[in-house]
Amino acid sequence: MAARGLPAHMYGPPVHNARVKRLKFWGWGYEDEGPDEAARGRLAQSLGERFGCELAPVPYPRISELALPAPRVRAPSALAAILSDDPWERARHAHGQGYRDIVRTLRREFPAPPDRVAFPENETQVAELLEWCTRERLAAVPFGGGSSVVGGVETAIAGDYRGVVTIDLGRMDRVLEIDRASRAARIQAGVLGPSLEDQLRPHGLTLRHFPQSFEFSSLGGWIATRSGGHFATRYTHIDEFVQGLRVVTPSGVAQTPRLPGSGAGPSPDRFFTGSEGTLGIITEAWMRLQDRPTLRANASVRFASFASAVAAVRALSQSGLEPANCRLLDPGEAATSAGATGGESILVLGFESADHALDAWMARAVELCRDHGGVVPEENVRTRGDAGATREGAAGAWRNAFIGAPYLRDALVSIGVFCETFETATTWDRFERLHARVMKEVHDELVRLCGAGSITCRFTHVYPDGPAPYYSLLAPAKRGAELELWDAVKHAAGEILASEGGTITHHHAVGRDHRKWYDRERPEAFARALRAAKTELDPAWVLNPGVLFDRN
Amino acid sequence: MAARGLPAHMYGPPVHNARVKRLKFWGWGYEDEGPDEAARGRLAQSLGERFGCELAPVPYPRISELALPAPRVRAPSALAAILSDDPWERARHAHGQGYRDIVRTLRREFPAPPDRVAFPENETQVAELLEWCTRERLAAVPFGGGSSVVGGVETAIAGDYRGVVTIDLGRMDRVLEIDRASRAARIQAGVLGPSLEDQLRPHGLTLRHFPQSFEFSSLGGWIATRSGGHFATRYTHIDEFVQGLRVVTPSGVAQTPRLPGSGAGPSPDRFFTGSEGTLGIITEAWMRLQDRPTLRANASVRFASFASAVAAVRALSQSGLEPANCRLLDPGEAATSAGATGGESILVLGFESADHALDAWMARAVELCRDHGGVVPEENVRTRGDAGATREGAAGAWRNAFIGAPYLRDALVSIGVFCETFETATTWDRFERLHARVMKEVHDELVRLCGAGSITCRFTHVYPDGPAPYYSLLAPAKRGAELELWDAVKHAAGEILASEGGTITHHHAVGRDHRKWYDRERPEAFARALRAAKTELDPAWVLNPGVLFDRN
Repeated sequence: MAARGLPAHMYGPPVHNARVKRLKFWGWGYEDEGPDEAARGRLAQSLGERFGCELAPVPYPRISELALPAPRVRAPSALAAILSDDPWERARHAHGQGYRDIVRTLRREFPAPPDRVAFPENETQVAELLEWCTRERLAAVPFGGGSSVVGGVETAIAGDYRGVVTIDLGRMDRVLEIDRASRAARIQAGVLGPSLEDQLRPHGLTLRHFPQSFEFSSLGGWIATRSGGHFATRYTHIDEFVQGLRVVTPSGVAQTPRLPGSGAGPSPDRFFTGSEGTLGIITEAWMRLQDRPTLRANASVRFASFASAVAAVRALSQSGLEPANCRLLDPGEAATSAGATGGESILVLGFESADHALDAWMARAVELCRDHGGVVPEENVRTRGDAGATREGAAGAWRNAFIGAPYLRDALVSIGVFCETFETATTWDRFERLHARVMKEVHDELVRLCGAGSITCRFTHVYPDGPAPYYSLLAPAKRGAELELWDAVKHAAGEILASEGGTITHHHAVGRDHRKWYDRERPEAFARALRAAKTELDPAWVLNPGVLFDRN
Repeated sequence: MAARGLPAHMYGPPVHNARVKRLKFWGWGYEDEGPDEAARGRLAQSLGERFGCELAPVPYPRISELALPAPRVRAPSALAAILSDDPWERARHAHGQGYRDIVRTLRREFPAPPDRVAFPENETQVAELLEWCTRERLAAVPFGGGSSVVGGVETAIAGDYRGVVTIDLGRMDRVLEIDRASRAARIQAGVLGPSLEDQLRPHGLTLRHFPQSFEFSSLGGWIATRSGGHFATRYTHIDEFVQGLRVVTPSGVAQTPRLPGSGAGPSPDRFFTGSEGTLGIITEAWMRLQDRPTLRANASVRFASFASAVAAVRALSQSGLEPANCRLLDPGEAATSAGATGGESILVLGFESADHALDAWMARAVELCRDHGGVVPEENVRTRGDAGATREGAAGAWRNAFIGAPYLRDALVSIGVFCETFETATTWDRFERLHARVMKEVHDELVRLCGAGSITCRFTHVYPDGPAPYYSLLAPAKRGAELELWDAVKHAAGEILASEGGTITHHHAVGRDHRKWYDRERPEAFARALRAAKTELDPAWVLNPGVLFDRN
């Protein structure tokens, strides 16, 4: 491994095992993981046949192939030890992990990497970095795991900045304090998912927040972007788990009180949660944790009709049962993720607890599903106490596909497949029309631009008042025209969501890519209030320019 | 009834039945409700014996006894029809319903009533009123049901205002739209609790938000103050039910999108929720509703030791069972509210559902209680489908005391009893020390100042990471020194909460009375951000001056 013996920051953030495995500078995950050449060849053949066209892999980029622009910024001596201008680090921090990002990295396009990448080790250094950026008029881009799919960590920044510094929180990755009685921990924001769970496990505790980016996304990133975890109901967003925050702003540190609940004015936690690095850099959080679940009841429910499945999910969402898992796969998703090729929809249903058997919960949930025509194998619905309970059947298949998806996505992009997702949430009364328009009009757009393509849907989260549908697109992209394709499809989708009452993002965040629709969704008076607050906290507007709002 | 035949605004807001019943201008509720003269006499005798002193009722005030200052403000002709300078309206809107308020109204002290009381009938009129206040430099105090116990609707306003106008939303009290599929409704903010439920009932829906002020508090007031309802877990604050808001600010209307969930930037709903009328006037909200529950399981659990009861409640709070009712009464409360005179603590436990029987939930909850020494009568814990299920036993006794409490409180103040409550929330690890200090030091302060007194505690709400304890104080007040007594006791309590990690308010709000501690609890950087946002939305700072923050 090339990184052996290099300075610590060359390894990327100190994730679990990352000391001996190096992250890709251009795409998802570790260098030696993901589909290999043979697998890419098979993918190209099978999808080429499906789409009726020729697909061929492009080689993955090597760092030596890149011609990065020279850094425009000198490190001040006091901060030199934590500021890297290593090409590998600059390349790795130049982009997120969206389709556009991978298209460009595969083209060896890194036109605007950060001039320096900072690896602060403590809050004082974070404050010093922001002071320096303010003084020198440098844009400061906070970076957790870098998994943004919405341009949230992009370093091609407009405006009169003299340079761009990415601030990677990866060295601030420790659990600092545990309060077992309250099931809470004080945690540094740079910790990535697996390391966080590793540190909590000895205490019998877990955050149980598993976004698809879990392996390479950070606590601070989750909070800054209102990340959605694997809980389909109840604890859908990270917001619910935030007990208190420390945020370093260019004009001082904000420490919110650590409380189980409060009615004292507008919530300061909810103000910084979702601020996407524009109001300050989250350095620590007190998080609400849970006991590690030991009891589970899972079921896979088949519905002949998607509409009946939707009705069942609505009934479940309003039942008060609050399943941990309640993921509805439409026929397309059911075929891909769970091998259901008969046109059925599949509801992956699960309850979990560290406290009690879940038979009564599952029994009623199954009853509700059957009331709507759902078919549930009788033997699968009892509470189980063995770990295998989550690994089998449709739940297991779905989980494996979920974890492997980002690796697979990069391989697909590399063989010339347009591979994108978007998601929303809307009220039940608006869902049917929104969904019908998305499925028809976005598909039409794929066919118009690519000659073929598929769109599928699953519900990632459900609320008593509406679902969060998640759409996945596949199509053969024209080489060289991928970004224009992305623009056109994103536009078609965004316009439907905006006009049919869906949010532009349930949990992917706004970043730079969703700005156009976010600006329409966000009340204008609230936008003005936020801008005024931003000016107060970040007077030089150095923090993550272009995300959430522009200065002018 | 004197009000018959007078203009509509003389009746007070159009609450259910209010057309024929008039509200007191000086205290809680309707003129003809609450303890009568004989009951007041009995109260005076029994509490006098308990405290070892003489207590004697003062007569309730009559409107003719008041010498209100002349209004300083002329109504512009365009708004004259909705602006009242009637003495009864001015007196009724001069105060909230806190101990201090009632002490002063019983003294016939109304030194600074609003110069005019506005009764807008639509959003345009609200905007016109704010425009007028901005132009004429008048303080504008939003008023829902007027039930604030923290000085939130007080009209004695410091600063260079030329007058004070209270804006009573009571005529905007209709449910405008129902979305049955999503179980949501668009509701005008001025509606009081009973009228709201009356309007939802025909649809089989309910908001099920029952703060103690339910009868005379409004939807807009609940949202503006982050009101706490009767749900002990899960849906503790009104915040959870807000799906979207309309807020009229002096610089325009903010309409937040109606969504079941979103990850698009900091939540605009959470920004206005808790803003206590300082950022704008909430005129409408889309609210998440529920099916009316038909199934209930209730139990009353006795614990010989308060510490064991606390441990049981902690286990329950972390079990994932999420009981609707989980109110722990300490021995003092248990004696008063549930007739438990043996020194036991009582946990009032309840589950409810419109969907499923609750035996499994209650069985496990009872098991957890018994694990901690709780005693539960076997026969009481099965799910029941009859309405009487909530009216009996400790739950029933508690409920009756709860609903009647504000009427009783006024009678107690009138006989010279110091009668105050305060509440907080804190993490489990901090609770024991905070609670011990409150129980000892606040009691010491009562005895020092009054020669006698009692303090009792209940948990109104519980979270996995901590309880929300609620303290009730009773003591014989020295006539004429009540406000100084209040100051001293409030100070003692506030200092303990602030230094032991409790919030200054879990659901009573900040208003003007909690400012000193709120200013310490609120992160300074967040305070600056909020002030900047306030200046943007309310450039002349006319909205509710002194609440949450001051201009300088």
